[in-house]
Amino acid sequence: MDTTLSPLAPKSFPQLAPVAGVRFATGNAGLRYKSRDDIMIAEFVPGTTAAGVFTKSKTCSAAVDWCREALSSGKARALIVNAGNANAFTGKLGVKAVEDTVDGAAKLFDCKHKQVFVASTGTIGVPLDASKLVSAMNKFAPDLEENRWEKAARAIMTTDTFAKGATATTEIDGVPVTISGFAKGSGMIAPDMATMLGYVFTDAQLPADVLQELLKDGTEKSFNSITVDSDTSTSDSLMLFATGQAKHAPISKAKDKRMKAFRQALNAVLIDLAQQVVRDGEGATKFVTVEVTGAASDKAARKIGLAIANSPLVKTAIAGEDANWGRIVMAVGKSGEKADRDALVVSIGGIPVAANGEVVPDYDETPVAKHFQGLYIDLSVDVGVGKGKATVWTCDLTHGYITINADYRS
Amino acid sequence: MDTTLSPLAPKSFPQLAPVAGVRFATGNAGLRYKSRDDIMIAEFVPGTTAAGVFTKSKTCSAAVDWCREALSSGKARALIVNAGNANAFTGKLGVKAVEDTVDGAAKLFDCKHKQVFVASTGTIGVPLDASKLVSAMNKFAPDLEENRWEKAARAIMTTDTFAKGATATTEIDGVPVTISGFAKGSGMIAPDMATMLGYVFTDAQLPADVLQELLKDGTEKSFNSITVDSDTSTSDSLMLFATGQAKHAPISKAKDKRMKAFRQALNAVLIDLAQQVVRDGEGATKFVTVEVTGAASDKAARKIGLAIANSPLVKTAIAGEDANWGRIVMAVGKSGEKADRDALVVSIGGIPVAANGEVVPDYDETPVAKHFQGLYIDLSVDVGVGKGKATVWTCDLTHGYITINADYRS
Repeated sequence: MDTTLSPLAPKSFPQLAPVAGVRFATGNAGLRYKSRDDIMIAEFVPGTTAAGVFTKSKTCSAAVDWCREALSSGKARALIVNAGNANAFTGKLGVKAVEDTVDGAAKLFDCKHKQVFVASTGTIGVPLDASKLVSAMNKFAPDLEENRWEKAARAIMTTDTFAKGATATTEIDGVPVTISGFAKGSGMIAPDMATMLGYVFTDAQLPADVLQELLKDGTEKSFNSITVDSDTSTSDSLMLFATGQAKHAPISKAKDKRMKAFRQALNAVLIDLAQQVVRDGEGATKFVTVEVTGAASDKAARKIGLAIANSPLVKTAIAGEDANWGRIVMAVGKSGEKADRDALVVSIGGIPVAANGEVVPDYDETPVAKHFQGLYIDLSVDVGVGKGKATVWTCDLTHGYITINADYRS
Repeated sequence: MDTTLSPLAPKSFPQLAPVAGVRFATGNAGLRYKSRDDIMIAEFVPGTTAAGVFTKSKTCSAAVDWCREALSSGKARALIVNAGNANAFTGKLGVKAVEDTVDGAAKLFDCKHKQVFVASTGTIGVPLDASKLVSAMNKFAPDLEENRWEKAARAIMTTDTFAKGATATTEIDGVPVTISGFAKGSGMIAPDMATMLGYVFTDAQLPADVLQELLKDGTEKSFNSITVDSDTSTSDSLMLFATGQAKHAPISKAKDKRMKAFRQALNAVLIDLAQQVVRDGEGATKFVTVEVTGAASDKAARKIGLAIANSPLVKTAIAGEDANWGRIVMAVGKSGEKADRDALVVSIGGIPVAANGEVVPDYDETPVAKHFQGLYIDLSVDVGVGKGKATVWTCDLTHGYITINADYRS
């Protein structure tokens, strides 16, 4: 497998702000990887609330089913994630493996089953030996420590070429609050592997329903606005935990005005993590920002943006540094959303390319071609029918993607 | 541009059955290609009826707009198609080019404007000089001849590596009838190019509304059931013309029992042409048949089939001859259609791989891997919720696709 660092990788793992009330341990559970950590254990102080959003896949994993069910408690004491085996499409054995893992953690942390969340990422269709996870939990839990961010982020990686973390400090009603988290993901599914996973932690003191609303809103403009290859994992999970250690005034509504700064900070962390997943897209050599304006609604704008971002012809044109704007027009058309062909405006790198349904007068491709030679490509489209807007991020489609995914076993 | 013949190409252009009442001429109009025919003129006897289905793109070409409007007449006297310039996203100039072409043909064939159909395939966004088309029409029309199938098919090619034709002889109420046609298309959009075009001709005597219904039904199971790269052209057009030269009893309903053989023959021609487009898919090295059964409806089955056929991870696995069935499960999940994960059955090359939501007992990958080494790959999935079924065809996603589409200008 090609593990060359993505050319779009950040220089280093960022310094994440500490979050009181959550501790991490990592280790090797011996599932698939032999010489690296492949289990991540997070322990939360009692009273920690939880929120989660999960894959819409109709063939989702047993772990996703469990997390959805467990969220009804709104509380979390532990999170157990393994890499190397997705425990997806493993039938009854898969359900049992989740039950055994949850049971082991509930005993270890002396909590209710529904306060334990789990995720697995790796090969689909291979039974997971939960006893290995339970042994590893018991072995590594005595070592739980705050602030072990990078190790935790590394333990859940599969084909990722770098560990992904993001952080923010903000306040609620004048009281300082921190938000830190990490994610993994490289293709929506990497070779033989499944999953985008993201975990974000805050010391804010927020009821589960408030947390859920904040996470759901933030996901739309972050993880739901990225695409590497249009393939949706069986295990995608994004969770947000609030340990309640920051002593701000009680908050009972996500829309509370005092939550404005927190919401902005949370969204910034989610967008940062989501963008890092794109930067580590399989075979990626360019980071692409697609801005859509003038759509019938924000939702329509996102659909148009994703149609552009998922188009193999747009993505290969970018890989080939070919300023082939006709393909962007084609992708707008295929999205199925309302667009006024004869009012369409296309800009590349801020340079107008097409307007009023045709190429701009005296179009000079030179500056556009130069923009296409950079690492960061900006496409913007106004579809001329309304006020809806959205920003979507993706990467290019290169020989690297084919090599990683087709030639993996050769 | 790589013009190596597709490994999936038929041995030669088939012998097409003659269709009385339609004549063809081809020639070089000097649009983009200098040393090959790039204009195809078809002339129909008076009384010929027409039906058409077109791209659902919201940024469709002016030619598509015109054909939709002209179909209200139900009659056809001429069809003019050029290759090398798509006349798509060319604004008012594009509309004018269509008007001028139609006007030229109406004068030449002494018919109403609405009896002239046009299509253009090639580069998007470049103004089309209609005067070149009109000159070429006048120059080449004296040469109109029946049975010039292969030349007609070749004149409309862009990045196609072979000319695509299909034929059938059948009967309506005991009277012999022929159906012959051709198509072009390689990517839904080839490099800088647009369009899948298909034209089918019959000597049957059928009212336009009957023809339209037959074509619409047949398209669902043929051209709407193929995908190369999920990108939809701005110019996709499929038309069916009936010259009425076969002297069978009058038919006033598509559902007429006497139409059964014709319907089957037509569908066979449409499927044959659609499959040839897949065989010429950009970079294709394998022809893939995806059969979906057990879906909530036929429509749902087709959506699931297309999700599998469009998945870059499924397509790269096939290119790499990697029997990675987990990716098929993933693609079923992401289709958004109802599927019972725990009843899912997956077979590859007729060999059961997974059932009841998990890999089959004692799964042996050897015969499956051997099947993946062939040119023809058969995937079948039963999603376990109903009686809906569909068959979808696609090709693999290879380095060839990236080379054609990314490295075109290098």
